[in-house]
Amino acid sequence: MAVGAQTDNVDVLIVGAGPAGLMMATWLAKCGVKTRIVDKRGTKVFNGQADGLQCRTLEIFDSFGFAHRAWIESNHMLEIALWNPDESGVLRRSSRIPDTIPGISRFQQVVLHQGRIERFFLDAINDFSQGKVSVERGVMPTSLEIDESSVEDPEAYPITVNLRHLSEEEAQPKQTSTSVNGTVIQDGLFRSNLSPDDTAEMLKTASLNEKADTVEVVKAKYMLGADGAHSWVRKELGFKLEGESTDYIWGVLDIVPITDFPDIRQRCAIHSASSGSVMVIPRENKLVRLYIQLTRTEKIGEQDSRTDRSWITPDVILESAQRIMAPYKISYRKLDWWTAYQIGQRVGSSFSAHDRVFLAGDAVHTHSPKAGQGMNVSMQDSFNLGWKVANVVKGLASRSILKTYESERKGIAQALIDFDHKFSRLFSGRPAKDIMDEEGISMEKFKEAFEKGNLFASGIAPFLAVDYGKSTIVAKPDLDESGLSTDKVAAERQALASEVKLGMRMPSVKVLNQSDARPWHLQELLRSNGTWRVILFPGNVGSEQQKKRMVSLCDQLSGESSFLKRFTPPSARYDSVIEVLTVHASNRHDHDIFDFPEVLRPYDEVDGWDYNKIFVDNQSYHEGHGELYKSFGISPDKGCVIILRPDQYVSYVGELDDYKSLDGFFSNFLIPQGGSK
Amino acid sequence: MAVGAQTDNVDVLIVGAGPAGLMMATWLAKCGVKTRIVDKRGTKVFNGQADGLQCRTLEIFDSFGFAHRAWIESNHMLEIALWNPDESGVLRRSSRIPDTIPGISRFQQVVLHQGRIERFFLDAINDFSQGKVSVERGVMPTSLEIDESSVEDPEAYPITVNLRHLSEEEAQPKQTSTSVNGTVIQDGLFRSNLSPDDTAEMLKTASLNEKADTVEVVKAKYMLGADGAHSWVRKELGFKLEGESTDYIWGVLDIVPITDFPDIRQRCAIHSASSGSVMVIPRENKLVRLYIQLTRTEKIGEQDSRTDRSWITPDVILESAQRIMAPYKISYRKLDWWTAYQIGQRVGSSFSAHDRVFLAGDAVHTHSPKAGQGMNVSMQDSFNLGWKVANVVKGLASRSILKTYESERKGIAQALIDFDHKFSRLFSGRPAKDIMDEEGISMEKFKEAFEKGNLFASGIAPFLAVDYGKSTIVAKPDLDESGLSTDKVAAERQALASEVKLGMRMPSVKVLNQSDARPWHLQELLRSNGTWRVILFPGNVGSEQQKKRMVSLCDQLSGESSFLKRFTPPSARYDSVIEVLTVHASNRHDHDIFDFPEVLRPYDEVDGWDYNKIFVDNQSYHEGHGELYKSFGISPDKGCVIILRPDQYVSYVGELDDYKSLDGFFSNFLIPQGGSK
Repeated sequence: MAVGAQTDNVDVLIVGAGPAGLMMATWLAKCGVKTRIVDKRGTKVFNGQADGLQCRTLEIFDSFGFAHRAWIESNHMLEIALWNPDESGVLRRSSRIPDTIPGISRFQQVVLHQGRIERFFLDAINDFSQGKVSVERGVMPTSLEIDESSVEDPEAYPITVNLRHLSEEEAQPKQTSTSVNGTVIQDGLFRSNLSPDDTAEMLKTASLNEKADTVEVVKAKYMLGADGAHSWVRKELGFKLEGESTDYIWGVLDIVPITDFPDIRQRCAIHSASSGSVMVIPRENKLVRLYIQLTRTEKIGEQDSRTDRSWITPDVILESAQRIMAPYKISYRKLDWWTAYQIGQRVGSSFSAHDRVFLAGDAVHTHSPKAGQGMNVSMQDSFNLGWKVANVVKGLASRSILKTYESERKGIAQALIDFDHKFSRLFSGRPAKDIMDEEGISMEKFKEAFEKGNLFASGIAPFLAVDYGKSTIVAKPDLDESGLSTDKVAAERQALASEVKLGMRMPSVKVLNQSDARPWHLQELLRSNGTWRVILFPGNVGSEQQKKRMVSLCDQLSGESSFLKRFTPPSARYDSVIEVLTVHASNRHDHDIFDFPEVLRPYDEVDGWDYNKIFVDNQSYHEGHGELYKSFGISPDKGCVIILRPDQYVSYVGELDDYKSLDGFFSNFLIPQGGSK
Repeated sequence: MAVGAQTDNVDVLIVGAGPAGLMMATWLAKCGVKTRIVDKRGTKVFNGQADGLQCRTLEIFDSFGFAHRAWIESNHMLEIALWNPDESGVLRRSSRIPDTIPGISRFQQVVLHQGRIERFFLDAINDFSQGKVSVERGVMPTSLEIDESSVEDPEAYPITVNLRHLSEEEAQPKQTSTSVNGTVIQDGLFRSNLSPDDTAEMLKTASLNEKADTVEVVKAKYMLGADGAHSWVRKELGFKLEGESTDYIWGVLDIVPITDFPDIRQRCAIHSASSGSVMVIPRENKLVRLYIQLTRTEKIGEQDSRTDRSWITPDVILESAQRIMAPYKISYRKLDWWTAYQIGQRVGSSFSAHDRVFLAGDAVHTHSPKAGQGMNVSMQDSFNLGWKVANVVKGLASRSILKTYESERKGIAQALIDFDHKFSRLFSGRPAKDIMDEEGISMEKFKEAFEKGNLFASGIAPFLAVDYGKSTIVAKPDLDESGLSTDKVAAERQALASEVKLGMRMPSVKVLNQSDARPWHLQELLRSNGTWRVILFPGNVGSEQQKKRMVSLCDQLSGESSFLKRFTPPSARYDSVIEVLTVHASNRHDHDIFDFPEVLRPYDEVDGWDYNKIFVDNQSYHEGHGELYKSFGISPDKGCVIILRPDQYVSYVGELDDYKSLDGFFSNFLIPQGGSK
């Protein structure tokens, strides 16, 4: 510890204010956890950088209340065109596929500059924390110590970090060498005007010098290293990124194109006969990003000096694009940003030390940017982690849930890397001339991989998608070698809602509020605020049998020893740890909320009855019929109860009146508090 | 003119910063017109006040880019319930009707506190004017002179106004006696926390004293009096509000209700047997507004003193509600605001002086608030006016278009007042006991009136809706006494797009961008920026005949003497005065933009081709099929051309290749400029 340095105690210290770090800070601010977030760079990014947003990422943004900002400002990608040489060697569109699989989400894949995305996070963090949490820029950790003797003590601050406040001169240079999930060579000289509201940031930068060169000691309960591919935190922990590089070099241009290529406003994969490939990603503000294969294939090692890359210029990259896209012409007058990188795939050896210090984002997985995955998977890392840390820091859940971070996210990172490895090679290869050309890449195979990539890119669909394994917080059946369930009870429970898959994110369709007929996407009700959710699907409550089962469950839910009360602190609101929602399947007009037990529509002496807990699967006046029971595979004559994690993933599916299993599930990891108001 | 006072020349001076004044300022800021807007009140409103937003108003907000803010924050009203005594005299729900007629708009009626709506306008004005236009509060006009000799001179500033900057003490008291479209009695003492971002406003107020008691002379080309029911501008012009008051008194409570009334989160009209009526309007943040008939019916004259109204308190109003809503119970712990008013309907004798000084909003029409119309019609007044003044001030259009303001808006005001007159009486009356009870109000009649009111409230539907008459800017056929067209050619033209009605707002369904397949509501393309629009509907461009007709029109459109060039200033962008859009009906996959003449996708040497002008009526991947040709009644084998005003109202429908009529239409009022870049 530095002599005479000041000391601060925080619950969580986040190193790195890119998307992964900001997602973590957003969760913690929302949950009221004492947090600091530092970044060695003096300002946030202004242009360039990764920028595809999957539909699942937009769902997550919506759960924090800012998806609409991204949706409005971004470019929407609807269709992918695949181009390759026809029999006579002339470049032709060979097929079109929808960019987001219809039906899997209420959002579709969009593209927006990372600087804007960071802006949405910063605003949300400021809003949720009422100004108490903001990114401290130009601040760098210089030492990390973990007191291993106290890592299992919930009250301890086992992490000690020294922070150095950089001078303005130190903090600035970092900004101009931006990393794009791979080897950075050089980025453009052009300043974008995409970020109109960054004035406050700039002013803050200007005052950096005041604290320059001071050192501060921070003691933290938990820590996240979201500090990029060259992660200092990872190196301090002694963990490695494992994997390989290829000798494919790609250039990137962000331009306003002048071209007669007809699909320039669509996502395109263009394979030329022998000049390499181009990926077209149309962006906001007339920009188009081109990923362009460079046919000179000198190996660029990690240790290579800048001189080795000096042949790469925007002109060289553009000429390569022109060769690949011929006979179409392409040029530009406006260049917003450019870079070049070498494809490589690496995954971290470990994601956590003692479940106290965690790594997320590029710090534990790097790959090629073309699949549009990097930023999404990075944000989803900390979206998985944030609520867990918040639940534990607040004393609501035991530390046992923290080990699911690595078990859940490492598999995802590996799947991403494997897919990217295969996809990059297919994309970088020369197209096969005919079926006999075994060295060439079959365009059919490429299309197939692209479609699968698309599924992966959604973050949702069943193939290659996020599907968390069995754990304390995912009550999944065990499977035998052939993928069949060895747990009959668990398998029967899953069958009660056959399309709501344990371990996957809750699907969403529209339901109506019983009290005012307003349609909501079910997911819109599942705000990210750290609470668990028990959703009752009592089915047809007009039937005596279903009503009886619902009432039977509610009698136990409202009892003094109910898990709703046991795990909620006495001073907290009734829905702050576990919220109960109901979606019934009767006709809305035949019921009002007073037909439902009070525990489903709690009373508050100031606010009256809660009108936002009971919903119905009916046709809306203006927005169609969600047909939830049908699409979720729930029988209105049977119903079920589903438990959702605070991140919308499905923990449990069970019988409507099986109170005991619900109680058992929560008792595994929630900590008794003693009543609720 | 005050001696020694400073003088300022502006294009437009707006008096009053309520919704009508702010809508005007928004238009002018968007169009780059030099504008000042003053308000005698020291701060904007914080709670209470009119707050229903029609779907048409949301469409207008969307054209300025902020409908989503209202949509997200507001309470949505989906269903109306009518309650009245059954045969045995017990209060029962007698029917339910959808609150917004399904299918008429992509928005539905919502409710949001006026202070938030004003905030959206203020942000838009600041954004559009790059900070140059902001509301000057605590500023009051003290004299108005019009130089009649120069009113027809486009370059003249015939209006001279003295402005007095009030001291803080003078400006503040106005704020606490808020008008609700009727006689103001008293408003509540409770400060709402609905307006979190008003700090800057408050600081501004604090500095009011600096300029206190200074007088300033402003010379203006045009002026808008949007200064409320007691309009100073109206009085200076010597115009009158004509109409009558009734002796019905209504109380208003904004409360968080505690009640067992099951429809408290729906809009309800409740008629009790003999205790009067209640209207329920559920609002945002758990609030509900109740309009409550007070059964004491002392006449309150305009000149009555406050002592006559002293018997009206929140308790008196609540007790009245309790009597009306019995046997249901209602009370509250939180009261946000309250007031009482006397029903009256008045309309201005004239809306304009010399087409130089205009009146809008409450200054020319006041009525009861329950129909949820006042603020909407007020904003739509200046939405009608703003672009006209901007077109004229910028020298693009002749002054002749200005006289359509009164001809278009006075009829609307009269229709509103007539409807409100009838509706208020039906609502205030005692329900009929049976069919023989002729003094009572028939509940069937009431329901019918309510449904019609609903149509009116939408601002769209054909019955009682906005339908502007024939004028320079609406090429409508003349009608004979039985409503049949006496102009055969005009009637035939209308038939080319039978569901796109001349004089009404352009309907909207989804179309796809030809270049990237993104679905857009047609209306989303019709941004409010002051430009006229020519929309080509060439139909099936795969057919030789339709393609030939399209090319024939485009040859003339791209000619040197085309109206597109003649009326666009040499330095202005090609689409700044008249924008050309195309929606074709062929299969998107069979075409690209290069199949269309260049005038439909103009080229810019920096930005390349314009990818946002050509659209197609096809099925989208994720958002259904708009079926525009079908729903607009346009034959794909015939097509048509439609001219839209800058406010989305339909000016002209004609043959696809009838260039001459298009040119003739614009030549009537646009001023030749000499070329475009």
